[in-house]
Amino acid sequence: MTQTENLTPASTGRSARLEVCLTPALIPLYNVEEYIVVIIDIFRATTSICYGIENGAEAIIPVSQVEECAAYREKGFDYLLAAERNGEVVSGFDFGNSPFSYTKEKVAGKTVVLTTTNGTHALHLSLKAKKIVLGSFLNITALCNWLKTQNDNILLVCAGWKNNFNLEDTLFAGAVVEQLKGTTLRTDDPAIAANDLFQLAKDDLDGYLKKTSHSERLKQLGIEADIAFCLNVDTTTAIPILDGEKLVKLVV
Amino acid sequence: MTQTENLTPASTGRSARLEVCLTPALIPLYNVEEYIVVIIDIFRATTSICYGIENGAEAIIPVSQVEECAAYREKGFDYLLAAERNGEVVSGFDFGNSPFSYTKEKVAGKTVVLTTTNGTHALHLSLKAKKIVLGSFLNITALCNWLKTQNDNILLVCAGWKNNFNLEDTLFAGAVVEQLKGTTLRTDDPAIAANDLFQLAKDDLDGYLKKTSHSERLKQLGIEADIAFCLNVDTTTAIPILDGEKLVKLVV
Repeated sequence: MTQTENLTPASTGRSARLEVCLTPALIPLYNVEEYIVVIIDIFRATTSICYGIENGAEAIIPVSQVEECAAYREKGFDYLLAAERNGEVVSGFDFGNSPFSYTKEKVAGKTVVLTTTNGTHALHLSLKAKKIVLGSFLNITALCNWLKTQNDNILLVCAGWKNNFNLEDTLFAGAVVEQLKGTTLRTDDPAIAANDLFQLAKDDLDGYLKKTSHSERLKQLGIEADIAFCLNVDTTTAIPILDGEKLVKLVV
Repeated sequence: MTQTENLTPASTGRSARLEVCLTPALIPLYNVEEYIVVIIDIFRATTSICYGIENGAEAIIPVSQVEECAAYREKGFDYLLAAERNGEVVSGFDFGNSPFSYTKEKVAGKTVVLTTTNGTHALHLSLKAKKIVLGSFLNITALCNWLKTQNDNILLVCAGWKNNFNLEDTLFAGAVVEQLKGTTLRTDDPAIAANDLFQLAKDDLDGYLKKTSHSERLKQLGIEADIAFCLNVDTTTAIPILDGEKLVKLVV
């Protein structure tokens, strides 16, 4: 599916689409150039980036490889360098993807270069999209309100875990589908499934997610406070958008 | 993830795994050689094959390409040749993947060569598995009873639609997870999600699936009778298993 037709809702006369890409491994099945893409990595990359941008970070530069991040040391910029792999800060870097590293005190007025196991990978596979924004429970309503103004196809890309499905990103996608229910957007099977799962989980997201196969792994990393933080809803309004190589605050 | 360690439950001392591969595009994420694989293509390939084997077909030979199927004309065997693409019988073939083509009258004592859009594709990507069996709602309890005797890792492979997620195969996977709940099998996030969706849908599978994005497409193909047939539960007990190039009846 590599044909690059400009299938805008206007050109086809059909309602715009709202679809869910359950893992980055499935991104090749989509013509991403037809969509506004929302990158989702709830634990913890997109949550932390949303928080950092809300807190006044000038920009956050997502890179795929640890080496790319490290190379910024030699470039003469006064950037903060953050790298996470398998839930832990990579040795030698300022911090990782914990939201507690993206407070006002730490990032206001600064630029952060960041690489993570899943979220930045999903973003880089989506680069041909019309627009790329980031979502988290923190800014979900602000994000959905903006999406409603776009009148274009939307692809919710779940970063997942190592290219496979995970529950938390899927639940978030389902929560977005829920907020966009009043529109004429046409959904697909993954969106239906994500929304049904969200309906099940919404009254106790934390409790529902405790049954996930990696909650034990996250607990062993000692990041339960991070997890709780990432499940706060509507505590921020800033929407990170990719502008060139940088994630910056979308001006609505 | 290409390392071929023999990670049997016995060798690792851990409980066997029960995992769900939501689409064939995700098969490369698994070391399939560590699993018994169950191929799932509810509408309609695995349903029809289960039905045909139950009805006394000697064997069903799954092939990937229409051309491979056609080539059997020249081989001098008295085989039936079946080919389906996009829900329709390919021109020039005896039939496709409608279960109504796999009755006793049509297939008893015969060998069928079959190619389909999704199911045979999923099977061919799983060839390194320890064993490959086929599942459908028709034989679900017989299948699960056999799986309980295996004491090995199980991977439920959803054929999906054109490499992407679909609801019906996921629901079936969730139904298998449900039946295997009394065991010590360790599940993953896709299995949890599939099972939760099955819990939602189980009292009215047909009604639930009407909201799927391709129910309209299936209706337009005029196969509503096929769909209803594929949702019958426990009407057969035969389990197709791959033996060499042929799917035959598993002798339990």
